[in-house]
Amino acid sequence: MSSLRVGVIGGGQLARMMTPPAINLGISLNVLAEAEGSSAALATSQVGDYNKLDVVAEFAKTVDVITFDHEHVPLSVLEALEANGVSVQPPSKALAFAQNKLKMRERLGALGLPMPDWAEIHDADSLDSFIEAHGGVAILKTPIGGYDGKGVRVVSSASDAADWLSPEGLAKVGGHLLAEEKVNFTRELAQLSARTPNGDFRAWPLVQTTQQNGVCAEVLAPAPDASEETLERAAEIARGVADGLGVTGVLAVEMFETADGRLLINELAMRPHNSGHFSIEGSVTSQFEQHLRAVLDLPLGSTQATDAHAVMVNLLGVDDSNDFLPHYEAAMSAHPEAKIHTYGKGARAGRKMGHVTVVAGNAEWALAEARATAKILRGE
Amino acid sequence: MSSLRVGVIGGGQLARMMTPPAINLGISLNVLAEAEGSSAALATSQVGDYNKLDVVAEFAKTVDVITFDHEHVPLSVLEALEANGVSVQPPSKALAFAQNKLKMRERLGALGLPMPDWAEIHDADSLDSFIEAHGGVAILKTPIGGYDGKGVRVVSSASDAADWLSPEGLAKVGGHLLAEEKVNFTRELAQLSARTPNGDFRAWPLVQTTQQNGVCAEVLAPAPDASEETLERAAEIARGVADGLGVTGVLAVEMFETADGRLLINELAMRPHNSGHFSIEGSVTSQFEQHLRAVLDLPLGSTQATDAHAVMVNLLGVDDSNDFLPHYEAAMSAHPEAKIHTYGKGARAGRKMGHVTVVAGNAEWALAEARATAKILRGE
Repeated sequence: MSSLRVGVIGGGQLARMMTPPAINLGISLNVLAEAEGSSAALATSQVGDYNKLDVVAEFAKTVDVITFDHEHVPLSVLEALEANGVSVQPPSKALAFAQNKLKMRERLGALGLPMPDWAEIHDADSLDSFIEAHGGVAILKTPIGGYDGKGVRVVSSASDAADWLSPEGLAKVGGHLLAEEKVNFTRELAQLSARTPNGDFRAWPLVQTTQQNGVCAEVLAPAPDASEETLERAAEIARGVADGLGVTGVLAVEMFETADGRLLINELAMRPHNSGHFSIEGSVTSQFEQHLRAVLDLPLGSTQATDAHAVMVNLLGVDDSNDFLPHYEAAMSAHPEAKIHTYGKGARAGRKMGHVTVVAGNAEWALAEARATAKILRGE
Repeated sequence: MSSLRVGVIGGGQLARMMTPPAINLGISLNVLAEAEGSSAALATSQVGDYNKLDVVAEFAKTVDVITFDHEHVPLSVLEALEANGVSVQPPSKALAFAQNKLKMRERLGALGLPMPDWAEIHDADSLDSFIEAHGGVAILKTPIGGYDGKGVRVVSSASDAADWLSPEGLAKVGGHLLAEEKVNFTRELAQLSARTPNGDFRAWPLVQTTQQNGVCAEVLAPAPDASEETLERAAEIARGVADGLGVTGVLAVEMFETADGRLLINELAMRPHNSGHFSIEGSVTSQFEQHLRAVLDLPLGSTQATDAHAVMVNLLGVDDSNDFLPHYEAAMSAHPEAKIHTYGKGARAGRKMGHVTVVAGNAEWALAEARATAKILRGE
């Protein structure tokens, strides 16, 4: 192996953040971006439509392995690549579960992994029955295409989802919806891990996440006051998902923790994930370096923490035109320890445009420092 | 400031290692490289001859500030840029001292900073007198153009340097040579620091360096068993040099420590330096991020250590064709904590092709781990 060439489909911030470890390790990173001027523009070698097999197949010829910035490449495209001997990591058989939340729930159930009650919904009656059986409320999801709170709705009656349940609505999402029990959770956690095609597996410390309007806002690593048992169980769940679904590369398992201490699997992401950005400075091996190592089937790096605590605060677009750069001087002057990341994306209210991480021995200080830095950068 | 655009002249590994922090901070990094396929190829926006004013002036139009991967750009080119209002950091008046070791010695002397005895040499007689006055030996240097042990010779008689002292030899180096006392040092140290045009200054912990054949081989951060007084003195010397010579960006001051505890300035580098590579993982702010912040006149980041110890071992070319990548699997498997960096350069025996850093609470373990990783990567 005298060349290490990774091809990433998708030019978002995840591909962008794979670039630094690729540079460090001498890995050649080629990105197939949707458009010119993407977040990962520096590593973009090609711009094209990932829905088209000929475009993706041409791109695949330039690299040793294909991986992803997002989970939207059609399975048929990936299966065709694999049939031609291209290494696709994670493979299409794993991505099938990431692309369809109903398939994911079925598979997790077969593996005996803990999750909220759920049901496949075809019509108003089946939804109303589920709602009635679960305290008058349910989380309704489109099984395909949702992210960051999109494609998710809290419903207390089928009439709240008349559009999705209409023949046209159902047709758009493959004929089914997914209803899930609305879990009365005490907090949300995420377990980040990585697995190689060879079966090597490593987990990072369990983290606590906070969402605002369905978008990740803050991550505390490690999750405060988690018992030894919880930490072990979370890592076991991640390993069960990774092995059971055949995931390679980085896997994020988002979980609910309930008042009685149960962990229930909420969502999965088979790629570096917002809940793992803390690892760039907070871990010996970041999720982005680990993903590159994993998809190349190289041995995984240490996931040990670099200090007792790491806090990540997202920089979401304030409005449709704000820019963080004019506030760098004030933020850097007041917070020399803060690690500022911006993704080179145009502003849109609520859009993930960057993040701030602070690593420290003291959790409260790290949180206060990261929040204060983000506040200055938002111009508040 | 809604754009942060840094132009780097020179496409070597230093420009390459500026790329990751530029990506993190959303800084647009443009590199003017000597040739296609350089170490910093990913950020290269232009290939051209940095000796030509029109090439460099054209490049300067695309950025907010010009800085350097090396110190070889002619002063006349930089002065012309400055006269046209281009921000050049470090400025030509500082680089003049980096480009001419005689000017540097004169200036350090005027500032009262500690250094070996030295003399300007024009002929065999003046060299023999200097040698006689300094125990029968001297270090003879060409004042311009030397690096990594090149342009340096240990002489015990002017006849050892007959080629350099010939009219043709002297003409090549500007008519003079520099003779320096051969210091009977106990070890070599390096003090890394950064200064902004605005005068903001921060120093990293003092490090110990080990050279092999005039090339940096290992760096221990912090320098073992350095007294509080030594640490303070080293930082004061760095500040004296930075302020006194008007340096902006990262400055490395290489020093000798003598048996009686004196620190004597050996060499200066006005750019990120091999002795500071440990800071990528070993410091809250790496020398590469700090250099970008400094040349943009942004507030400097914290130089606090991320753990008690960091050890860096260089990966030098074993022969003219070796490659480290085939040994990644073995090295990563045995040393999951090691941070491996390779520069994408063709092999040449003794050439700096990469480095390994290990950060840890235990200095002996970090050194053993870094050395063992480098050994595997060298194929030993």
